[in-house]
Amino acid sequence: MCGIVGVVAKSYVNQTIFDALTVLQHRGQDAAGMVTGEGNRFFLRKDNGLVSEVFRTRHMKRLAGNAGIGHVRYPTAGSSSSAEAQPFYVNSPYGIALAHNGNLTNAEALADEMFRADLRHINTTSDSEVLLNVFAHELQGQGKLQPNADDMFSAVKRVHERCTGGYAVVVMITGYGILAFRDPNGIRPLCYGKRETETGEEYMVSSESVALDVCGFTHVRDIEPGEAIYIDMDGNVNTQQCARNSRYAPCLFEFVYLARPDSIIDGVNVHMSRMLMGEKLAAKVLRERPDHDIDVIIPIPDTSRTAALEMAKSLKVDFREGFIKNRYIGRTFIMPGQGERKKSVRRKLNPIEMEFRGKVVMLVDDSIVRGTTSKQIVQMARDMGAKKVYFASASPAVRFPNVYGIDMPAATELIAHGRTEEEVGEYIGTDWMLFQELADLKECVSLCNPEIREFDTCVFDGKYVTGDVDGDYLARLEVKRNDAAMADDDTDAESNESADDLHSRID
Amino acid sequence: MCGIVGVVAKSYVNQTIFDALTVLQHRGQDAAGMVTGEGNRFFLRKDNGLVSEVFRTRHMKRLAGNAGIGHVRYPTAGSSSSAEAQPFYVNSPYGIALAHNGNLTNAEALADEMFRADLRHINTTSDSEVLLNVFAHELQGQGKLQPNADDMFSAVKRVHERCTGGYAVVVMITGYGILAFRDPNGIRPLCYGKRETETGEEYMVSSESVALDVCGFTHVRDIEPGEAIYIDMDGNVNTQQCARNSRYAPCLFEFVYLARPDSIIDGVNVHMSRMLMGEKLAAKVLRERPDHDIDVIIPIPDTSRTAALEMAKSLKVDFREGFIKNRYIGRTFIMPGQGERKKSVRRKLNPIEMEFRGKVVMLVDDSIVRGTTSKQIVQMARDMGAKKVYFASASPAVRFPNVYGIDMPAATELIAHGRTEEEVGEYIGTDWMLFQELADLKECVSLCNPEIREFDTCVFDGKYVTGDVDGDYLARLEVKRNDAAMADDDTDAESNESADDLHSRID
Amino acid sequence: MCGIVGVVAKSYVNQTIFDALTVLQHRGQDAAGMVTGEGNRFFLRKDNGLVSEVFRTRHMKRLAGNAGIGHVRYPTAGSSSSAEAQPFYVNSPYGIALAHNGNLTNAEALADEMFRADLRHINTTSDSEVLLNVFAHELQGQGKLQPNADDMFSAVKRVHERCTGGYAVVVMITGYGILAFRDPNGIRPLCYGKRETETGEEYMVSSESVALDVCGFTHVRDIEPGEAIYIDMDGNVNTQQCARNSRYAPCLFEFVYLARPDSIIDGVNVHMSRMLMGEKLAAKVLRERPDHDIDVIIPIPDTSRTAALEMAKSLKVDFREGFIKNRYIGRTFIMPGQGERKKSVRRKLNPIEMEFRGKVVMLVDDSIVRGTTSKQIVQMARDMGAKKVYFASASPAVRFPNVYGIDMPAATELIAHGRTEEEVGEYIGTDWMLFQELADLKECVSLCNPEIREFDTCVFDGKYVTGDVDGDYLARLEVKRNDAAMADDDTDAESNESADDLHSRID
Amino acid sequence: MCGIVGVVAKSYVNQTIFDALTVLQHRGQDAAGMVTGEGNRFFLRKDNGLVSEVFRTRHMKRLAGNAGIGHVRYPTAGSSSSAEAQPFYVNSPYGIALAHNGNLTNAEALADEMFRADLRHINTTSDSEVLLNVFAHELQGQGKLQPNADDMFSAVKRVHERCTGGYAVVVMITGYGILAFRDPNGIRPLCYGKRETETGEEYMVSSESVALDVCGFTHVRDIEPGEAIYIDMDGNVNTQQCARNSRYAPCLFEFVYLARPDSIIDGVNVHMSRMLMGEKLAAKVLRERPDHDIDVIIPIPDTSRTAALEMAKSLKVDFREGFIKNRYIGRTFIMPGQGERKKSVRRKLNPIEMEFRGKVVMLVDDSIVRGTTSKQIVQMARDMGAKKVYFASASPAVRFPNVYGIDMPAATELIAHGRTEEEVGEYIGTDWMLFQELADLKECVSLCNPEIREFDTCVFDGKYVTGDVDGDYLARLEVKRNDAAMADDDTDAESNESADDLHSRID
Repeated sequence: MCGIVGVVAKSYVNQTIFDALTVLQHRGQDAAGMVTGEGNRFFLRKDNGLVSEVFRTRHMKRLAGNAGIGHVRYPTAGSSSSAEAQPFYVNSPYGIALAHNGNLTNAEALADEMFRADLRHINTTSDSEVLLNVFAHELQGQGKLQPNADDMFSAVKRVHERCTGGYAVVVMITGYGILAFRDPNGIRPLCYGKRETETGEEYMVSSESVALDVCGFTHVRDIEPGEAIYIDMDGNVNTQQCARNSRYAPCLFEFVYLARPDSIIDGVNVHMSRMLMGEKLAAKVLRERPDHDIDVIIPIPDTSRTAALEMAKSLKVDFREGFIKNRYIGRTFIMPGQGERKKSVRRKLNPIEMEFRGKVVMLVDDSIVRGTTSKQIVQMARDMGAKKVYFASASPAVRFPNVYGIDMPAATELIAHGRTEEEVGEYIGTDWMLFQELADLKECVSLCNPEIREFDTCVFDGKYVTGDVDGDYLARLEVKRNDAAMADDDTDAESNESADDLHSRID
Repeated sequence: MCGIVGVVAKSYVNQTIFDALTVLQHRGQDAAGMVTGEGNRFFLRKDNGLVSEVFRTRHMKRLAGNAGIGHVRYPTAGSSSSAEAQPFYVNSPYGIALAHNGNLTNAEALADEMFRADLRHINTTSDSEVLLNVFAHELQGQGKLQPNADDMFSAVKRVHERCTGGYAVVVMITGYGILAFRDPNGIRPLCYGKRETETGEEYMVSSESVALDVCGFTHVRDIEPGEAIYIDMDGNVNTQQCARNSRYAPCLFEFVYLARPDSIIDGVNVHMSRMLMGEKLAAKVLRERPDHDIDVIIPIPDTSRTAALEMAKSLKVDFREGFIKNRYIGRTFIMPGQGERKKSVRRKLNPIEMEFRGKVVMLVDDSIVRGTTSKQIVQMARDMGAKKVYFASASPAVRFPNVYGIDMPAATELIAHGRTEEEVGEYIGTDWMLFQELADLKECVSLCNPEIREFDTCVFDGKYVTGDVDGDYLARLEVKRNDAAMADDDTDAESNESADDLHSRID
Repeated sequence: MCGIVGVVAKSYVNQTIFDALTVLQHRGQDAAGMVTGEGNRFFLRKDNGLVSEVFRTRHMKRLAGNAGIGHVRYPTAGSSSSAEAQPFYVNSPYGIALAHNGNLTNAEALADEMFRADLRHINTTSDSEVLLNVFAHELQGQGKLQPNADDMFSAVKRVHERCTGGYAVVVMITGYGILAFRDPNGIRPLCYGKRETETGEEYMVSSESVALDVCGFTHVRDIEPGEAIYIDMDGNVNTQQCARNSRYAPCLFEFVYLARPDSIIDGVNVHMSRMLMGEKLAAKVLRERPDHDIDVIIPIPDTSRTAALEMAKSLKVDFREGFIKNRYIGRTFIMPGQGERKKSVRRKLNPIEMEFRGKVVMLVDDSIVRGTTSKQIVQMARDMGAKKVYFASASPAVRFPNVYGIDMPAATELIAHGRTEEEVGEYIGTDWMLFQELADLKECVSLCNPEIREFDTCVFDGKYVTGDVDGDYLARLEVKRNDAAMADDDTDAESNESADDLHSRID
Repeated sequence: MCGIVGVVAKSYVNQTIFDALTVLQHRGQDAAGMVTGEGNRFFLRKDNGLVSEVFRTRHMKRLAGNAGIGHVRYPTAGSSSSAEAQPFYVNSPYGIALAHNGNLTNAEALADEMFRADLRHINTTSDSEVLLNVFAHELQGQGKLQPNADDMFSAVKRVHERCTGGYAVVVMITGYGILAFRDPNGIRPLCYGKRETETGEEYMVSSESVALDVCGFTHVRDIEPGEAIYIDMDGNVNTQQCARNSRYAPCLFEFVYLARPDSIIDGVNVHMSRMLMGEKLAAKVLRERPDHDIDVIIPIPDTSRTAALEMAKSLKVDFREGFIKNRYIGRTFIMPGQGERKKSVRRKLNPIEMEFRGKVVMLVDDSIVRGTTSKQIVQMARDMGAKKVYFASASPAVRFPNVYGIDMPAATELIAHGRTEEEVGEYIGTDWMLFQELADLKECVSLCNPEIREFDTCVFDGKYVTGDVDGDYLARLEVKRNDAAMADDDTDAESNESADDLHSRID
């Protein structure tokens, strides 16, 4: 995952972009970047680190201009160099900076093609650089000295024709304005909002609506699948559907896990959808075990809290905070001559014994990815004296890799890959393993916005909505992710502890 | 507040102290420090910043040794220089490093006395440096080439005689061991634990038991008021009561607000005490308005969640997460030529509209200090469409300054100072203002450990347990805190946004 | 001035480029940069600071590859941002990085033209970025997927046609090789050398031959005016004359002042040319005052030492080191509330009294630019008790601005601008002002290589060899340099003391 | 070597101390430090690095006060940690900071004694920390609440009684003033000066008089062997002879090599003494080879230039600058997987071929220590085509280690240790090896100040003026220096290239 933002305002945008990135930080804590433009000059700052670390006063002073874009990056295995932080930039044509959230499934072919056809050199392994160069080439093809909204949209059309995958993109064209667009399936989220000021209207596009809220923008609407929005430097807004065949098929994982609960994504109140997920889990409990013996429901903080609370209400059993999250980063230093210490979930989560002792507890988490963390959590509950430990996952079993911008372990590393739900339960050591039904999960979201009926559900059922992901692609991906994981073993002792399970990211 | 830790182990302690400080980070995010000792050498690293920022691999490499102490500091107005980070050090006698949590109420007189009597120079305004020099002088007075536990305890006795205030202290005597002690009223918490390893027993003393948990130590017991514990380099443990008149009068504020819920402090399960606080609040609701119209109870995250949940259960009304906390630091950069932006609670807390729209909501917070944040939160709830907004504080009105190590605004800055509860409610704009009764709050804690019957409750009732805090002292303090607040207006634009209300610290 | 280097080798070039830049550091201490290429990836590091400050181990580790280019930048007023450090980079076509020494006199027109014709955005005020884009555009125009030497040379021809000014350039085309070329007048120096290794021949191009010497390369020859050299990744060397009308007109100032004495530039042994300058000065002394009373000749270290020594020999008077140079940087900190301290030459130069007391001293410097330093030096000599103080300048009076890459004050800031030699002498307070004759200076260089008969002598006689520098251009320059100087008054207190006279730079 | 400075002024001293340290930087480039005092507070900044690197604006802002001391440290093998940078500090009594130049020969015994008798812990291996604690203990022994000059001098007397070795010391007693003193043999230099300002007289003590010159102080006189000077905060100056038996026996090596030529040390004009050294060398040439065939005399820059010039004059042969020094630091990066590169003198010194080709050259250096550099220089001269290469050393053969503060290789690493002059000549490959006679060298200095007749000449003749250096001591030293050298092989790749010969330090 990544988070993106773009702003066109009536005064300097650096602080607003900084604030927005801070709010989107849950979508990526690995690197941050911002480009702003003033007149014909643009200014760039990007580096590895949290937003608060990357932008210091001395950088903010240089980031002049009333328009700009920003990005936060999730730590993807194998591409963690600061040179691959976004936004990327090319000076031809016009001077264009781009940042995106997602992943192109044909990036390699495009990079090759681009070099052959356009002599454009791609210096990194980042698909963002590819996307930027495709767009730049297509915009250049319009041949305008002063490109207008139509030129922008024409270029976006060509991007949709050439690129496959999931992508939500913000672009700054130096001296002209901010452009944003979303892939034809709407896999990654994107919305925009408006802020009235004394000197006129200001606009923000953002991955999630929370950034609009916190920065004082009113949520106008989501950008539709395939649609583009262009806001010029004077604040004129143009939108156009740029894809031939677009449809709503947003990533289902955003709702259950990635997004902030206080966001509205594609008309769906995330918080409400998670409440429904809790109800659905409760219903499944009652279906499976009408006379269950659950004493207390305990969430694994923070994402699953909403679902767990409603589950408890539906079941009329106690809800309790049994785990306290350690909010501060606990790094493991590798000292010369010392072996690596075993990573422990205890450094992230601390149980409160009185909530477990002698009770039948139902733990609720948003998902199970590698399973190692869940296994340790179950054990921790037992160590605290729980009589029985049940485990509910608000999402179905994760069995396939995501190829649309969510960094996940190789398929073979997924605990549910090739395993039944029961086998997963055995692995993590629970007395009762409860997975959300995929149909239920879809319904939770659709109930919040009946217009959304299709989803990208690839991680659960292996169906890739873009249609171009075949066995070959997945096999290559498997190799690459395993290599990356291996390479990570060599990484600098300074680097933050890498997540031992996907969901340790957001919480 | 501050957090302290001391460890004597069988191998290098730097990682363990680092981990413990990370877990104690909620007690102070302003500065961090560590001293370790190997043979006759000690190694020091301290600086402003979070634990993860202060200790980098290059520092950890130097922090050799099987014993050490650590400290995290809360950002106190007016003493934020890195030179005042702890631990402090003197080389005479032996080489002694000290860190503490608390505040001496006679620090100025002691500093003067020390210079006159002992020619010891105090270079900072930190009372820790005073405490260190008092201890060092008294230990020197024992005149031993090789001091033993008795010498340590004799020196602590003299410290208790000379110093007044609240203090929990860890000391490393280079080449000898770790000493820790607590003021005769036990105002600040301190406990210790044990870890078995293949090479022998290891010990940790810590402000809160969570640090023991996370680092794999078993909680042995609290250090008693006035008691000292000395663990020599071989791991021999000695304890002794060093105060003539000691009694249990722990700071009540620790339970309602400062401590982590998963800590056990003076035998009190903090989590359970907060559950009881919620029940007491519910009881008061029913007493005051038996047929209240509350639709939903919403906590101000994170501290008040436990109390709010139990309050809702007792009242049998809905409990909902209506506010989402922004976890990442949102700094305001002061740019040349720009006025300062209005600080907004919105950057820290984002409401979920559906939980407010058309409802009568009862908001629950741990306390109200300046009131400015509460006021904005109430307004936010109204803006989200709440029909009525009630506000419950899990603690009584905060009316007096704390002088035992909790940094608070000057008395005149406290919204409840000289105001009735109703007036506070009017100020923050609530439709119903509900404060916990002091007697109820005490009972919540006492119920968890009946042996604790007295408390330091000065912030609520102005009664200072050390008996030496008079009007003069408070008047001087008022001047000092106001000056400090003023000075803070000049501070570096790089510094983190200062909390606009006390409780923005922990959450 | 700036210094440039390019290397194609059989193993990693980062250390060699680092070494070469260190040796060329006298040509620029303001910023440094390096680009290396490995396969299809290039790596960039550039920042403000000395070579030893900009490149740390962590950067060197990333600078992989067997080919690369480097740059050191002279602190030019008004363009001191790190964003303008070189090399610059464009990704289209191929990925091209470029660094240069010199100045384009038609940079503004080119930047405008480039945007209109090619839509290439120039983001800085650096003419290097302009030069890079002109070259990139012309190379793109060749339309080759795999460009060869002829394509490179064709592009250089177009660069010569479009660009005017003085320039010595190194270019890296990612994946292909290193290209270097020199303007048709050969104003800025450039040479190349060869190094035999076990695995084959390696090549370096460099501003000055000293870099070749120190890095173990054998000096092959100078690049001729208008000529280009292309060394592909396999080490094949191609050269071609790419200018229609080229001629040797090197900058005369290089010999008297800029270059290291141990360099060979355009076949001229700089050291020998400076010895001749001393002889010419001696001859002028004897012509003007056959029975002069000079007791001792004292150089202003370091540049003028060689000339002063030979002058003394010719005149058969004593030569003595009367001034000791302070080698380390003496910065002036601007503290809040303090006015700026008067800059004093004393912080750079300390006199030895015994060499002045009671003597008639002839001071020798390479040139007089603003005159403020010379004035202080003369006064210092008087303060040390000199009976009379004479002053000889190894170069003629500097009366006009340089537009080919030597950063100089605005014309009106030049002490000799609009003043006779006598008036300059009066201003600096000397008893006898002696300037080298321009004809003599030219002869000193021509004697060392009779093939060099023409020179760029613009700073002395206002004749600009490129023919395009008119009154308008100079008027605009005057405004720009004055503005820049003004802007510098605001610069950060952290920045190094700016030179109060041009020649404080090199020494 | 190290350089020290102390200032008492009428306004803030930070800039003046910074300037003085910059001028003394040739005495130590490894670390720098400063302590200033204002009222009862002192401020400290010290770290590894050059003066310009250690003190940034943010540090200077904190270094408040009208009195202070400063230090630059020479990179001594084995004690290069920043924790051992000076000044050192103790808070008892009064708050005392100390910095020194020199070495105590009984530091280990003192450290032990101090712990036993005074319980004072010495945390580093630095003898400065020992010296500070001896002084602090003795001053404490005076028992004064407000110590005066007599108390200071009494403490210095005790220091002289307890400490042996060479030491020049500056001390700041917080709130009282600056004290400086010199060992009873006057081995290390120390002088003081006065500056008149509108608000009164200001004073500086400094290792060398150049610091006084550059900072605008008038040289008053040298501090005498055993003498102490105390300047209180009001600017009252007191001096007293504090040693029972003092005599002038300054280090002879200061004159030939360490000091700046523009310094006056113990009444000796260093520049003049070096001129005489050249004359003495000329005389020896004529004695040994009356009809020598020397064509040209070439100095190894910079120290030997003065002597070489006078030698040439006396012999009436040409003097030429044949080597150009690379002024900028050339570091060798150790890359993973690469072996270490051979260190080459070529990176420091570049020859000008025309000055060697076909000539008989006499090279002149200040000394020969390890011989490895000299050997490479001789070879370089031959490579440049010299017919014959002679080599003159302005000092006698260096055969014994220095124990008074000049860091030198172990005795066995000295090329002349146990070798005849001829054997040294053979080793370095010269056709004629010429060493200064020790008696001549002494006379050169004595001629400049007839009152100085004795010297510390230990490195030449093994006679240690303090009388306490025996075979045992030297044997331990040998082991320690060899160990340190070995340890250095492991040092961080970031560290500057260590000098391969002693004299690469200063030049």
